[in-house]
Amino acid sequence: MRASFLNKAGDISVREIDVPTLEADQVLVRVESVGICGSDVHYYKHGKIGPFVVEKPLILGHELSGVISEVGSAVDSKRIGERVAVEPQRACGKCEQCIAGRYNLCPDMEFYATPPIDGAFCEFVRIQSKFAYAIPDSISFDAAALIEPMSVCIWAGQKAAIQSGSKVLIAGAGPIGVIMAQVAKAMGATEVVVTDVVADRLAFVLNHGATRTVNTSTQSLGNEKFDAFIDACGVESAVIAGIKATGPAGRVLLVGLGSDEMKLPISHIQNNEIIVTGVFRYTNTWPIAIDLLAKKKVNLDAIVTHHFGLEQAEDGLKATTAPDAMKVIVHPGK
Amino acid sequence: MRASFLNKAGDISVREIDVPTLEADQVLVRVESVGICGSDVHYYKHGKIGPFVVEKPLILGHELSGVISEVGSAVDSKRIGERVAVEPQRACGKCEQCIAGRYNLCPDMEFYATPPIDGAFCEFVRIQSKFAYAIPDSISFDAAALIEPMSVCIWAGQKAAIQSGSKVLIAGAGPIGVIMAQVAKAMGATEVVVTDVVADRLAFVLNHGATRTVNTSTQSLGNEKFDAFIDACGVESAVIAGIKATGPAGRVLLVGLGSDEMKLPISHIQNNEIIVTGVFRYTNTWPIAIDLLAKKKVNLDAIVTHHFGLEQAEDGLKATTAPDAMKVIVHPGK
Amino acid sequence: MRASFLNKAGDISVREIDVPTLEADQVLVRVESVGICGSDVHYYKHGKIGPFVVEKPLILGHELSGVISEVGSAVDSKRIGERVAVEPQRACGKCEQCIAGRYNLCPDMEFYATPPIDGAFCEFVRIQSKFAYAIPDSISFDAAALIEPMSVCIWAGQKAAIQSGSKVLIAGAGPIGVIMAQVAKAMGATEVVVTDVVADRLAFVLNHGATRTVNTSTQSLGNEKFDAFIDACGVESAVIAGIKATGPAGRVLLVGLGSDEMKLPISHIQNNEIIVTGVFRYTNTWPIAIDLLAKKKVNLDAIVTHHFGLEQAEDGLKATTAPDAMKVIVHPGK
Amino acid sequence: MRASFLNKAGDISVREIDVPTLEADQVLVRVESVGICGSDVHYYKHGKIGPFVVEKPLILGHELSGVISEVGSAVDSKRIGERVAVEPQRACGKCEQCIAGRYNLCPDMEFYATPPIDGAFCEFVRIQSKFAYAIPDSISFDAAALIEPMSVCIWAGQKAAIQSGSKVLIAGAGPIGVIMAQVAKAMGATEVVVTDVVADRLAFVLNHGATRTVNTSTQSLGNEKFDAFIDACGVESAVIAGIKATGPAGRVLLVGLGSDEMKLPISHIQNNEIIVTGVFRYTNTWPIAIDLLAKKKVNLDAIVTHHFGLEQAEDGLKATTAPDAMKVIVHPGK
Repeated sequence: MRASFLNKAGDISVREIDVPTLEADQVLVRVESVGICGSDVHYYKHGKIGPFVVEKPLILGHELSGVISEVGSAVDSKRIGERVAVEPQRACGKCEQCIAGRYNLCPDMEFYATPPIDGAFCEFVRIQSKFAYAIPDSISFDAAALIEPMSVCIWAGQKAAIQSGSKVLIAGAGPIGVIMAQVAKAMGATEVVVTDVVADRLAFVLNHGATRTVNTSTQSLGNEKFDAFIDACGVESAVIAGIKATGPAGRVLLVGLGSDEMKLPISHIQNNEIIVTGVFRYTNTWPIAIDLLAKKKVNLDAIVTHHFGLEQAEDGLKATTAPDAMKVIVHPGK
Repeated sequence: MRASFLNKAGDISVREIDVPTLEADQVLVRVESVGICGSDVHYYKHGKIGPFVVEKPLILGHELSGVISEVGSAVDSKRIGERVAVEPQRACGKCEQCIAGRYNLCPDMEFYATPPIDGAFCEFVRIQSKFAYAIPDSISFDAAALIEPMSVCIWAGQKAAIQSGSKVLIAGAGPIGVIMAQVAKAMGATEVVVTDVVADRLAFVLNHGATRTVNTSTQSLGNEKFDAFIDACGVESAVIAGIKATGPAGRVLLVGLGSDEMKLPISHIQNNEIIVTGVFRYTNTWPIAIDLLAKKKVNLDAIVTHHFGLEQAEDGLKATTAPDAMKVIVHPGK
Repeated sequence: MRASFLNKAGDISVREIDVPTLEADQVLVRVESVGICGSDVHYYKHGKIGPFVVEKPLILGHELSGVISEVGSAVDSKRIGERVAVEPQRACGKCEQCIAGRYNLCPDMEFYATPPIDGAFCEFVRIQSKFAYAIPDSISFDAAALIEPMSVCIWAGQKAAIQSGSKVLIAGAGPIGVIMAQVAKAMGATEVVVTDVVADRLAFVLNHGATRTVNTSTQSLGNEKFDAFIDACGVESAVIAGIKATGPAGRVLLVGLGSDEMKLPISHIQNNEIIVTGVFRYTNTWPIAIDLLAKKKVNLDAIVTHHFGLEQAEDGLKATTAPDAMKVIVHPGK
Repeated sequence: MRASFLNKAGDISVREIDVPTLEADQVLVRVESVGICGSDVHYYKHGKIGPFVVEKPLILGHELSGVISEVGSAVDSKRIGERVAVEPQRACGKCEQCIAGRYNLCPDMEFYATPPIDGAFCEFVRIQSKFAYAIPDSISFDAAALIEPMSVCIWAGQKAAIQSGSKVLIAGAGPIGVIMAQVAKAMGATEVVVTDVVADRLAFVLNHGATRTVNTSTQSLGNEKFDAFIDACGVESAVIAGIKATGPAGRVLLVGLGSDEMKLPISHIQNNEIIVTGVFRYTNTWPIAIDLLAKKKVNLDAIVTHHFGLEQAEDGLKATTAPDAMKVIVHPGK
């Protein structure tokens, strides 16, 4: 099969490799759509993220959907042909975190496109059968691929205790901010305010989840207090403004990736007993996402702006920084 | 002003009485709409509910909306003329339950239409300013009155931990069952199955909240397991069936009022670690309800089937048992 | 090795069988102490518990400790010789319950001494390395075996939200009631009232956990309200009395096994928003138990009243019903 | 009566003023012991704390106990003569925070010794009857006064979810650190590690709550991970070290007051989904504290090092910075 390898920072090439062999409880998925994530771009540009270094050629891509083309010996062969969204992680199932139900925090996690584990910029991938979730025909392959970033948003929304009537502030109108706005609304939030400094992005999110937007390059947030603030931009000033806009006993979710350290307003956090935390991937979110997509409560197709074939994966990585890019999809079969 | 009194079981008469005088932090509300609740009907028929006995003439009605016509000395006079939904309770604010945030469990609660506290089948009522919630013009007086039963449903939904993707079973397609179905959906439930034995009610709820219905006079529930079961009928067999349809670690909310005791399937509760609890009124639900109604996520007008003036309040109480009755409204000003 | 088999109800015999072979991540434990549980006695008397039927000879016993005598290929051989307490369960690690952190509710659980899975009335058992927990020398083998019933109590205490200052009511002063009283105290409860109808048991528990006892054959509970009620007897009248003694928003944990159905005071549960639930085994409790035992906060040795060798296991099962029996231990090596 | 006034920063004088008059639900308390808190010292030195400025003479002191000497018209006169610990706050009881059960976050809170509300460096104070908690003779007046700082610790322990078996790290072995260590232990923590840079304080806390200490001027924390970290020193470097020592899904409670902003390790918080929050006073803690003190689970008398009469209150404020000072008590009656 054909696979696109990141050989080192800035160096990508497509090569022929063997189709992976299956363990008994795995399925082989013919990949249809792969969303490009900021982390893929970061590996492409820098060759590493924190402690994870690309030391040998790595296949990028961890937001994916496809069709089951083969099954392991313990999997029902009726699954062959099934359209699926893939949860691209494999926890050990035995450690303290796993048995506590926090498999996302498993120290032995094997996660797609995180060195040395390969991802999905290739024709076929293997995954445990359980983590290949059947999707109805009403969900496109592109939308199914984007269940991965949507899962981050569902997880954040759960930790933020967003519920019916919640007032939610989101910083950043990029892909995560837009999906987060829609997820917040689907969770019952009645006010979803999104901030950014790019007018086009704010206009877009106002049509896709936000009930109101604030362009923080020209406007200030005002005195309104929110039940939850979700940072989806990773910019210190936005995080500080968001924390200060969070009301008593409110929740702050740090989703955006920025610098390793930030100067936070401690006394404001203390005086208002605000809860600050972050998300690291997710657990058990695919079924929720599939339900929400099938019920048309969230629209992921709307945020897809660019498409590339496998040979053009590098172009896809570069396209993510175009002013009009929201979400770029790679189609390994094309 | 004119007020309709329940003198004793089965005996109602309208009399002229003084308009209530206000404490500093209260407002006077000219009542526009009062929903009739099962408890009103129960007092009318039996003269008591459990330990609460009608020992002197009592004004019924605790689901209400209206217009502020006068304010106490500590209330901004700009509130005069405001359209409001009334939370019909007054907790002591000082007891262990109140300071723990559970004011609904305050042993010294003064609740409308619960002996000896009068209710709203009359032209004017008084309430603490805080508990008269402003409503936008988009919410009708009838819908605003029904925020009271909707609050029971919001409270039950919160205790049932209904969230995005939840699968919810509701027993009973009466007013509470129908509102509960809509609230469950607004809270993010993607599956809302409602059971009843009356085909018309099931047909109605299928258009107003349910994603599927089961007529338990002819069909059984099947083997599907739910995240939450909410009983809105008070019938022992339905409660037992609902508990058995609740999956591992699921939640059971007993909202319907039936017999004081029920034979529950203990070993099923134990083996599945199911959580069983009930609701007693609610706390802090009006703002959520107003938000959901303003955003058109819940439709309460659709369930109003009958209207009566104050002089016809008794006819209204009787009308609640008509086959086509869902919710009956009394309009004290008419 | 020698193993004691329950051939069918009332029929026990000791036979020689092969020592079990190990999977890579398992250890072989030479069994030192096995506590006899009510479920062992029930299988002995009736040959089944609910859907679990002894269809072929079964080794009983699931409360156990011992010494690691051999390790699987993936286990550090330094573990050989380690004194351990065994968590006698093996969940699938892959199902919905397992990945949600509720491995005790895994439908594919393999649990010791639950047909068709053999238990510990034998010289050697195998268990996943992770579930053989090292114990310090200060914890006796008998105490280590009783971590299993203690785990039920820790789990119940966690679900009952027992914390510093809690007032706890426990029905039943048998082994579970006595351990529960000690665990409740260790969790910070400042009032631990235990009820029973046997004076000797009440006298015992007053020295081992209870701050006060009530002999319900002669005294009533009075009007005090508790934060949590834990049933450890399975008697309907005690459960009803306990629920009625539970205060607003209190928690009721049904730990005792009695009849499959009980007539519960529904309106009391509703009016006080009491939470009723049960426990089914436990998750992640061994480390807590070992800590508490090592710190001398709980004394399990005090409740051991009888000891038997493997050949006398049947005598041990019979001894559990003796008036002076609290906990009976079988020592397979003797 | 005699009262000690802080006229402005560094200027204290004792004057004669009227005994306060009582509202119906209040009691008059003859003050016996008043602990000096860091905030008292801060007002004395700087004349303000954040937005709270001493604009007219202020009576300091908010940690207090005494004897009821008079009762309001609605209070049972049998309370006269009762020994009491005073919860020194009065929330409005009506705002959103109050009715949500978070009365500590009431924006209209009247709190002792917080401008313009007077405190307890005087012979008599008034308080709502409910907030004067009866104490048994076994609790000294000094210990009863220190229930106030102990309440901060209970509140922090609850928010940190300390429970049976918890491993807790505390930074700072001052009064709050020492009380926190004892409270953590009483809540069931089996490991309580306290850090400081002063050897004497570490030696002291090792005898009063800590299971181990680390002198961070010479030792590092090592690689152990804790379930909860409680900062009781307000020093940025200690907070950062503590957060890094907190394990996956652990909790960080910021109790110490330091600079308004701190540079926190965001990516560590995100990657481990650590929850960071603070405490602002407390709710509903006095009954728990009284229970724990009566049961001898916490020893507050041990930390009292200095005593002063009312005329020497200024000496008391200065004494708090002595190397051997742990807790200084003012006795207004002496």
